[in-house]
Amino acid sequence: MHTRKALQQQFEQALKAQNFPADPPELYEPFSYILGLGGKRLRPVLVLMGCDLFGGDIEEAIDPALALELFHNFTLIHDDIMDEAPIRRGQPTVHKQFNTNIAILSGDVMLVYAYRYISKLKPPVLQQVLAVFHDTAIKVCEGQQYDMNFEQREDVSIAEYLDMISLKTAVLLAGALKIGAYTGGADESDAQRLYDFGKHLGLAFQLQDDLLDTYGESGDFGKQVGGDIIQNKKTFLWLKALELADEAQRAVLVQWSSAQEFDPAEKVKAVKAVYNALDIKSLTGELMQEHYGMALAALDEI
Amino acid sequence: MHTRKALQQQFEQALKAQNFPADPPELYEPFSYILGLGGKRLRPVLVLMGCDLFGGDIEEAIDPALALELFHNFTLIHDDIMDEAPIRRGQPTVHKQFNTNIAILSGDVMLVYAYRYISKLKPPVLQQVLAVFHDTAIKVCEGQQYDMNFEQREDVSIAEYLDMISLKTAVLLAGALKIGAYTGGADESDAQRLYDFGKHLGLAFQLQDDLLDTYGESGDFGKQVGGDIIQNKKTFLWLKALELADEAQRAVLVQWSSAQEFDPAEKVKAVKAVYNALDIKSLTGELMQEHYGMALAALDEI
Repeated sequence: MHTRKALQQQFEQALKAQNFPADPPELYEPFSYILGLGGKRLRPVLVLMGCDLFGGDIEEAIDPALALELFHNFTLIHDDIMDEAPIRRGQPTVHKQFNTNIAILSGDVMLVYAYRYISKLKPPVLQQVLAVFHDTAIKVCEGQQYDMNFEQREDVSIAEYLDMISLKTAVLLAGALKIGAYTGGADESDAQRLYDFGKHLGLAFQLQDDLLDTYGESGDFGKQVGGDIIQNKKTFLWLKALELADEAQRAVLVQWSSAQEFDPAEKVKAVKAVYNALDIKSLTGELMQEHYGMALAALDEI
Repeated sequence: MHTRKALQQQFEQALKAQNFPADPPELYEPFSYILGLGGKRLRPVLVLMGCDLFGGDIEEAIDPALALELFHNFTLIHDDIMDEAPIRRGQPTVHKQFNTNIAILSGDVMLVYAYRYISKLKPPVLQQVLAVFHDTAIKVCEGQQYDMNFEQREDVSIAEYLDMISLKTAVLLAGALKIGAYTGGADESDAQRLYDFGKHLGLAFQLQDDLLDTYGESGDFGKQVGGDIIQNKKTFLWLKALELADEAQRAVLVQWSSAQEFDPAEKVKAVKAVYNALDIKSLTGELMQEHYGMALAALDEI
């Protein structure tokens, strides 16, 4: 078994060795720009890990790993347009650095390149991996649509939120592992178990993300602590608090979320006080542990 | 051999029988909306024709035909955003009917569905068709980028224009035929000949389009005659006229293309007078005939 760090290095080298075309530059400069912003390369490393777990040759998993990294970056480019996000990893997003049309079109061509890498696999792994890839890609798009819909809705249930983050985030980690498993020679049921492991792990990660946004130390993420509260994001913490709140607490939450002008620090403090009274931190931690437990159970079965 | 009309009917039935998901509706309503706007279904019919030409079973070409139609509609949705086009086939474009975010995301998921249809093919046709599909998709995106670039440039050469329309338009017709040929059992060299046929035919079609825009009867296309002239589109006619114009004629062309306020009918008349003096209609017709000739030569070789 290779370490995470070794796999990441192997992937970085492979990525650096790729030659994307030079023309038209508008279409391909965003490739090197966004891929050059770094990141942990979590998804491609999961492909390589999935392969490694079943004793496969890591080299054979490099193409699908490149596919997953390109797919992930395609979603970042298009999501950032839709979310009107100006900054990604401390740098201007693609539609800000170039323009929206370039961001749409270079994202499109990046998705095609992702498929092109997948297609280098040989049957029958080719068909197995294609099926996972389509399914994952469709779910990620559906998750993004639900996420956008939820911004406009006040009646999002916790079940809906968990479904949404499962589609938008967890399924891609799960798909990366399953694709890796198939390239490593896993059979269908083992590949599915690794998928389940990835899905629960992804859900746990997202809940941890939500938790750290409110309870983390500033700088953990390079994000502002309390950003989710300031932006009225309907996270698990928020939805759980709304569910458990008594009349007075609900009034506090509603008042702050509908306030047009406010002091951000004061808003974070007030909402956090309700969270604390309702023990939201522990409840989120418990759900996280539950998903970690389910993830490990799926892994144990392999 | 089946008639074009029979193949189109067979395709329409297959398209109608497809069940796309219902949720989230924002993502899938644009599918039925844009696919329901009709059209000649040229690209899927070319897939079926390519298959038919080599004695293949039309039924086996239905999935790649669906893929080509979805791919084409994905490009329409995204191109209409980039071109800020409000109307498509007499109806609001997807980003006008719904919104831009929905148009981006439903276009993305439509591209994934296109790949999913392709992936129903069996090896070795699967790999052959995937390779054509990636290549075609990348070229179409590159063509769209060049088209956008050319709007900002005054020094576009005729060779560059022909390259651009080849990438943006002709290659997709060529790719559709080649994909059909592979599903019909054609070998690589015959499939390539059919590709060349489609490419030259596509170029001839586009030149005819350009010609009809200026010289057609009103109503041929449901478009305004002279629309390209009014919008300063750098078509073959325009570029050829600029190339051949003497000083006085060039001055007329430049004056009208840079005029901010003008009577459209007067502009069309003035520019057309220069075209007529330079015999642009015949020159375009000759180039069209040249590409028809090359198309037929490629077909003869099969």
